[in-house]
Amino acid sequence: MHFRDSKRKVDYVLAYHYRKRLARHLPAPGSPEPMRRAASLSLVSNGGMAKGSAELHPQEPPGLPGVQVVELSPLDALEEEKQLQREEYERNLVEAGLEIEKDPENKSQGLSFVRIHAPWQVLSREAELLRIKMPTKKMYEITEEGGILKKLNEIWCKLTEPLQPQVPRQENTNMKTLSYPFSREKIYLYNIKDKDTFFDNATRSRIVREILKRTSTKARSSMGIGTLIANNVYDAAYPLHDGEYEGKNDAMNERQLLYQEWARYGVFYKFQPIDLIRKYFGEKIGLYFAWLGLYTEFLIPSSVVGIIVFLYGCITIESDIPSKEMCDQHNAFTMCPLCDKFCDYWNLSTACATARASHLFDNPATVFFSVFMALWATMFLEQWKRLQMRLCYFWDLTGLEEEEEHPRPEYETKLLQKKLKNKNITAENSNEGEKEKLTWSDRMPGYAANLGLILFMIMLTCSAVFGVIVYRITTAAALSFSTNQTPRSNVRVTVTATAVIINLVVILILDEIYGAVAKWLTEIEVPKTEKTFEERLILKAFLLKFVNSYAPIFYVAFFKGRFVGRPGHYVYVFDGYRMEECAPGGCLMELCIQLSIIMLGKQLIQNNLFEIGIPKLKKLFRKLKDERTEPKEVDTNQSKDPQQWDLDYILEPFTGLTPEYMEMIIQFGFVTLFVASFPLAPVFALLNNIIEVRLDAKKFVTELRRPDTVREKDIGIWYNILSGIGKLSVIINAFVIAITSDFIPRLMYQYAYSQNGTMHGFINHTLSYFNVSHLKAGTQPENSPFAQDVLFCRFKDYREPPWSPNQYEFSKQHWAVLSARLAFVILFQNLVMFLSVLVDWMIPDIPKDISEQIKKEKSVLVDFFLKEEHEKLKLIESFITHDKHKHKSGAKGSRIRAASFQGYHVNPSRQSSFTSFSSQHTEV
Amino acid sequence: MHFRDSKRKVDYVLAYHYRKRLARHLPAPGSPEPMRRAASLSLVSNGGMAKGSAELHPQEPPGLPGVQVVELSPLDALEEEKQLQREEYERNLVEAGLEIEKDPENKSQGLSFVRIHAPWQVLSREAELLRIKMPTKKMYEITEEGGILKKLNEIWCKLTEPLQPQVPRQENTNMKTLSYPFSREKIYLYNIKDKDTFFDNATRSRIVREILKRTSTKARSSMGIGTLIANNVYDAAYPLHDGEYEGKNDAMNERQLLYQEWARYGVFYKFQPIDLIRKYFGEKIGLYFAWLGLYTEFLIPSSVVGIIVFLYGCITIESDIPSKEMCDQHNAFTMCPLCDKFCDYWNLSTACATARASHLFDNPATVFFSVFMALWATMFLEQWKRLQMRLCYFWDLTGLEEEEEHPRPEYETKLLQKKLKNKNITAENSNEGEKEKLTWSDRMPGYAANLGLILFMIMLTCSAVFGVIVYRITTAAALSFSTNQTPRSNVRVTVTATAVIINLVVILILDEIYGAVAKWLTEIEVPKTEKTFEERLILKAFLLKFVNSYAPIFYVAFFKGRFVGRPGHYVYVFDGYRMEECAPGGCLMELCIQLSIIMLGKQLIQNNLFEIGIPKLKKLFRKLKDERTEPKEVDTNQSKDPQQWDLDYILEPFTGLTPEYMEMIIQFGFVTLFVASFPLAPVFALLNNIIEVRLDAKKFVTELRRPDTVREKDIGIWYNILSGIGKLSVIINAFVIAITSDFIPRLMYQYAYSQNGTMHGFINHTLSYFNVSHLKAGTQPENSPFAQDVLFCRFKDYREPPWSPNQYEFSKQHWAVLSARLAFVILFQNLVMFLSVLVDWMIPDIPKDISEQIKKEKSVLVDFFLKEEHEKLKLIESFITHDKHKHKSGAKGSRIRAASFQGYHVNPSRQSSFTSFSSQHTEV
Repeated sequence: MHFRDSKRKVDYVLAYHYRKRLARHLPAPGSPEPMRRAASLSLVSNGGMAKGSAELHPQEPPGLPGVQVVELSPLDALEEEKQLQREEYERNLVEAGLEIEKDPENKSQGLSFVRIHAPWQVLSREAELLRIKMPTKKMYEITEEGGILKKLNEIWCKLTEPLQPQVPRQENTNMKTLSYPFSREKIYLYNIKDKDTFFDNATRSRIVREILKRTSTKARSSMGIGTLIANNVYDAAYPLHDGEYEGKNDAMNERQLLYQEWARYGVFYKFQPIDLIRKYFGEKIGLYFAWLGLYTEFLIPSSVVGIIVFLYGCITIESDIPSKEMCDQHNAFTMCPLCDKFCDYWNLSTACATARASHLFDNPATVFFSVFMALWATMFLEQWKRLQMRLCYFWDLTGLEEEEEHPRPEYETKLLQKKLKNKNITAENSNEGEKEKLTWSDRMPGYAANLGLILFMIMLTCSAVFGVIVYRITTAAALSFSTNQTPRSNVRVTVTATAVIINLVVILILDEIYGAVAKWLTEIEVPKTEKTFEERLILKAFLLKFVNSYAPIFYVAFFKGRFVGRPGHYVYVFDGYRMEECAPGGCLMELCIQLSIIMLGKQLIQNNLFEIGIPKLKKLFRKLKDERTEPKEVDTNQSKDPQQWDLDYILEPFTGLTPEYMEMIIQFGFVTLFVASFPLAPVFALLNNIIEVRLDAKKFVTELRRPDTVREKDIGIWYNILSGIGKLSVIINAFVIAITSDFIPRLMYQYAYSQNGTMHGFINHTLSYFNVSHLKAGTQPENSPFAQDVLFCRFKDYREPPWSPNQYEFSKQHWAVLSARLAFVILFQNLVMFLSVLVDWMIPDIPKDISEQIKKEKSVLVDFFLKEEHEKLKLIESFITHDKHKHKSGAKGSRIRAASFQGYHVNPSRQSSFTSFSSQHTEV
Repeated sequence: MHFRDSKRKVDYVLAYHYRKRLARHLPAPGSPEPMRRAASLSLVSNGGMAKGSAELHPQEPPGLPGVQVVELSPLDALEEEKQLQREEYERNLVEAGLEIEKDPENKSQGLSFVRIHAPWQVLSREAELLRIKMPTKKMYEITEEGGILKKLNEIWCKLTEPLQPQVPRQENTNMKTLSYPFSREKIYLYNIKDKDTFFDNATRSRIVREILKRTSTKARSSMGIGTLIANNVYDAAYPLHDGEYEGKNDAMNERQLLYQEWARYGVFYKFQPIDLIRKYFGEKIGLYFAWLGLYTEFLIPSSVVGIIVFLYGCITIESDIPSKEMCDQHNAFTMCPLCDKFCDYWNLSTACATARASHLFDNPATVFFSVFMALWATMFLEQWKRLQMRLCYFWDLTGLEEEEEHPRPEYETKLLQKKLKNKNITAENSNEGEKEKLTWSDRMPGYAANLGLILFMIMLTCSAVFGVIVYRITTAAALSFSTNQTPRSNVRVTVTATAVIINLVVILILDEIYGAVAKWLTEIEVPKTEKTFEERLILKAFLLKFVNSYAPIFYVAFFKGRFVGRPGHYVYVFDGYRMEECAPGGCLMELCIQLSIIMLGKQLIQNNLFEIGIPKLKKLFRKLKDERTEPKEVDTNQSKDPQQWDLDYILEPFTGLTPEYMEMIIQFGFVTLFVASFPLAPVFALLNNIIEVRLDAKKFVTELRRPDTVREKDIGIWYNILSGIGKLSVIINAFVIAITSDFIPRLMYQYAYSQNGTMHGFINHTLSYFNVSHLKAGTQPENSPFAQDVLFCRFKDYREPPWSPNQYEFSKQHWAVLSARLAFVILFQNLVMFLSVLVDWMIPDIPKDISEQIKKEKSVLVDFFLKEEHEKLKLIESFITHDKHKHKSGAKGSRIRAASFQGYHVNPSRQSSFTSFSSQHTEV
């Protein structure tokens, strides 16, 4: 954790593989090798001794740029080049004020670490430049709610006491330290006990990273640390963990604390120690876990309501008249055959089970539940905004301005290429476009490829869905051809189950492919900064994965069974294959099966199996590879008491939060989009998330290198995606209730067509008559035992009966029900949207207490400064009076004194500032 | 414009009426009257001479608080109290560093002015406190678009040259001065040529106003300037205009410039000099005019498209088959009578004119136009966000933080009352709730009154609308009873015209009432700050005025003619009065008439007549009143060369932008909400706005006192209202097209019912048959000449014919058309909303060049500072070397020097800051 002097903390580590040139290359003509070695050794000594930095980097070896070792093999030349780049880069780091320590490269090849320490003057300078807010001496009280709210809060705190993680907390929670961007001029404001610990580890490593990013190898095609890592000059760059995570002693480091109180499955019931997470991992990761926590908490009420809705369905199943009528053996509804020729007429009561199951999800409570969930989504987003604001306040992120971003290495490379190309072609025009940037025409091919490939991918998904449909139709037909009686009865179950599993597998495979494709596509686009890169990647990946996950569900919800045609006039996909119909209980049941299997399958396999398994596999693979490449020397070095940087190097690098968010967002989609058809979705999501939180936590604490801390005010584009899903869910649920479920026809029947206002006769009303003699030749059931007895068969649709003049046309009921369905969509959509807007408007984005605190903080800050200034003025005054007594200065002095009273500036030239600085010298 | 010394600028003026006590009150026992007079005279002399301010306010007269003049009459006691308050307030102002000048009160009563000047030290101190951004010496180049865009921009500039207002402009438009919050410590940064003109007039008056607001009469029940004005201690407080607006000479002041180039009808074609407006009136008013300008510009394309759509209607009128069929005398459609008993059967061809007129507004182009306008509204809002951002950048408002607001005087009064009450009741509990604020229970009555009254007002509006409906029904009936033939034919025209005019009058009257009610209601609520007051007032006023303006239009669009019943089974409002029907051409025509008359009437009468007339009347009234109250002494004082403060005092005070915005927002509603029925709305709005801009400008420049400049980053709640209207317009237009217009039935007929795919037979298809023998007894036409020949009459509805088994029930067509209508609503709404979101997403809120500029500005700023710091360090260095040579200082000095290199702070105590301040004394 420290340099060899056990004093200076290691703030950052660069790791690289070196390969020494073999001896045969040494006698290069006039090679300044010893000199370079000396330079590299001097760098090592920089770490060894605490001398002034100025004398540590001698003048750049004059012979260095001219080095040309002609006989090097290409591989060695590359190594040589890398070595030079590393040396220059490290020299530049030392020049920037950092102190570095290197292990001597005493093997022919191997892993070496550059350990970086930032001394106080660098830290303070950078903190000022980065405007890092640091706590000042001033504390102020947080006004608490008075009266009942306070009482309630206390009770709540007491009740949740066992759920709170046991991490050290600020003693006085009512006080908040006033923070102010660090400024060396106002150093007296801050509570600096020890300069070594004033900036915590996360801040220190952040500062070092900023310097690393800014520094570049100027002499050799200007590359920053990003490019250096991309070019394999360095293997990795990472800050160090706080120590081991295992082992429990009294003075636990933060990593141990996190592991004990957060990153174990054993503490799944506890709240997350968000402040500690933020302190250790930075604001961006802190926000992710805060978001995940809030989402999980919000899933609790929706799960409860979901279970109640489901139970309501279970309880009312016995009193549901339509399913009773369907199951009633006396109501002999002879249904038209389900397939041509081989299928027989059948009795509706055989579909009794599905009808009853259907009722579980297709009842009025579902309508209530989907309104509830739409408002729930709005509430969740609102609460998140508030929590975000609260965290911003307590984490001192208010007023954080966007940091300037460095272009991505890929962008720089591309720009360089363009410059070179332009120079070659039009040498005379090159000075006109001084500040080059990639224009629209440069990016055109990238965009075109993007558009094309995304469209292709979406079509791929659709054809996969279509493929599964074809599979279902053909298999069903094949199974029904078979003369064996057993499979025929299980046809529907077999086909549905296998089809959904195929769907799931396709989704899982395509998901992985799409993730890679999205990344590749975004790289083609060459976005300028890391932030745009991330945003575009997220958008693309989300679009593809969304389509992939939901396409089969959309098909079942809105298309399946709509294009069947009618008996005697069926729609055929291929020759002889009829379009598939929904089960007699309605399509909602199938939607529910589809949804639950895909959701559960995705969660179980992708989120849990993959997330646990793949890192393990990767680790194994890396280990094997490492062992293969350097089998001999590993033991001599690694065996003797591995240092923290060695341990961290073995861990996986952190690759961003995108997959974590994506997983949750897709799940959020399952929870909200089709919630009308599957009220248990929130329950399963809740169960998954309780594991997910600890799984992610464990990953971050034990399996990943410590991520760079990133300051971030919000969760960025994810919020927009969430709110987009929320809005989409309103429309989709409206359609699911209106179109997919039987809610509207039932309502219509009860209030418009029923004779006595009850549901009796509903089944009969939804079935149309068909005259079997109108069946086309060759499609009649072949070997039906009771074909002779059947005059009319029934099918589910609102059509005119055979005896009407407009035989089999849509009946008036059809249009009336359709009107009602559409009216319901309009009503539902606008009502829920209005309610959402209302909720959005009623809940202020910034919690009232926080906005008051922010105002208070401002005024406290102004007071604090004014007081400081006042004291200064007093001191001056007393000094002047003191002075007067002593020196009895003349007219000139008194004039100046008066001026210093008015605004303590005499002449607005640099003279005054100059003097104010030099004063330290003269007065002390 | 200046104090009597013609040097110090008058930055602010307080005006008050004084009344001297008459002589008989003078001999009060032990009155320290002479002393007080002396104090007040010393205040006058403060203005008269430029001595140091410290000696100008002597110690507070010790006898003053004990003054008790027992024999004063109540009126005089009040006057006395006011006098004391004024004196204390002015003393406090002087203490705060302001310089004031007063006219001697040499008459028994009259108008007196307190003129306030802010000296440099006050200005600089306050500018620092308020963080007013001031231009520094540093300029930087604004990167321009390259290539074609630049060319296009140049051409555009050249083309619009004559439209540009001729105001002095920054010479080099490519350069922008870097601004930085004013800081006295960094005074060398700013380009201060003359301390008197460094802060412009608007900034000076803003600073003075801040001090005025902050200062209060502590001794006498702590009142700020707001409360003082509310209590009539002062009459008015205002900054001065820059001089006369008329007269044209070479060196025009800004007011003259504004008048010449902006506030005249003669320059209506020119762009607005937004920067000058902002400079003179402040950011808030500048934003209003910028918004109004953008809105007016955006109306141009929509007007053009609106005219084209209208012309399309005119051109296609001859080829429109339905109206041709209607006018065809050969198609003898015998229609059912329009009223019971007195009305006869009539032939549809008599309604030919309305059918043809209807086509003007009810054609497919209208559908296109309403999609266009929905996107237009989104585009407008997006562009406004961009323009706002651009202005923010150029006006240096980026990063402007919300200023802390002072509570409103009314709030303070209420709080005081509550405190007093609490003290009386529970004296022991009073120290518990230290920081009192109005709780929910205190505000409860206010909120309840609000809710109740708003509901009542809305009901009032609805009943007014209903009253007009009743008027229309009864008048129509009465007119049709009359045996005279002439009025009967004009019944519809007469009734519609008078009813709309009544509607208009009601709207105009209620508008005024609602404005007052909204204000009163908001005052009842006692909002804490001026900002919340404004927001709540706006919301309430908007709600009431919106309902008021649109209620009759909503009625015509969605309810009129829907609840008529059918022949033989009509719906009756009162005994014998049938619900009114739409004209045979469809309700859209009536909607169009209603809309156009209300919109034009409101604009002409309210916006223009009232806005021009009422201020004139008010002025006249004030003049008359002034003349009546002080008829004698006016001449002696006012006649001799009136000063600017006298002139400004006569002007109307500025009362906020709310009415101006409100007017425009209601107009925006007319332009977007029902645009499907009246495509010419944008044209009329455009014509109105061209006048409106100049009218408002004229008002601000010539008729109002100079408003206090207010810094504001955006237009606040108006933006939300605008975007709400935009969203509402999508839904309303969807319904207008689907339900009110005949667009869907026509489409349905053409593609579903027509035999040959043309519109021939459409009229016949929409008319149902009615067997006249089914008319109820007593409702048959009484003296119909051809009652014997008529077997069936026709009415406009889709119902089953008399010969169907389900006589007069809705037919299948009815339900099919209804489904199509509703499907259209869903499609239209979601499509347009999706397009709007897309437009919103595609157009970045911050223009790309501006966001780049902002980033650039930041980096320029950092560079600038670093350079300055570097120079400082160099100076120190050179000083130290210089010093070394001179003094040969010992070990202590060198240590300090080294420290100052590292971060120029030696010990983080106040000692160092103390020395840095005292340096000015020792070094100069």
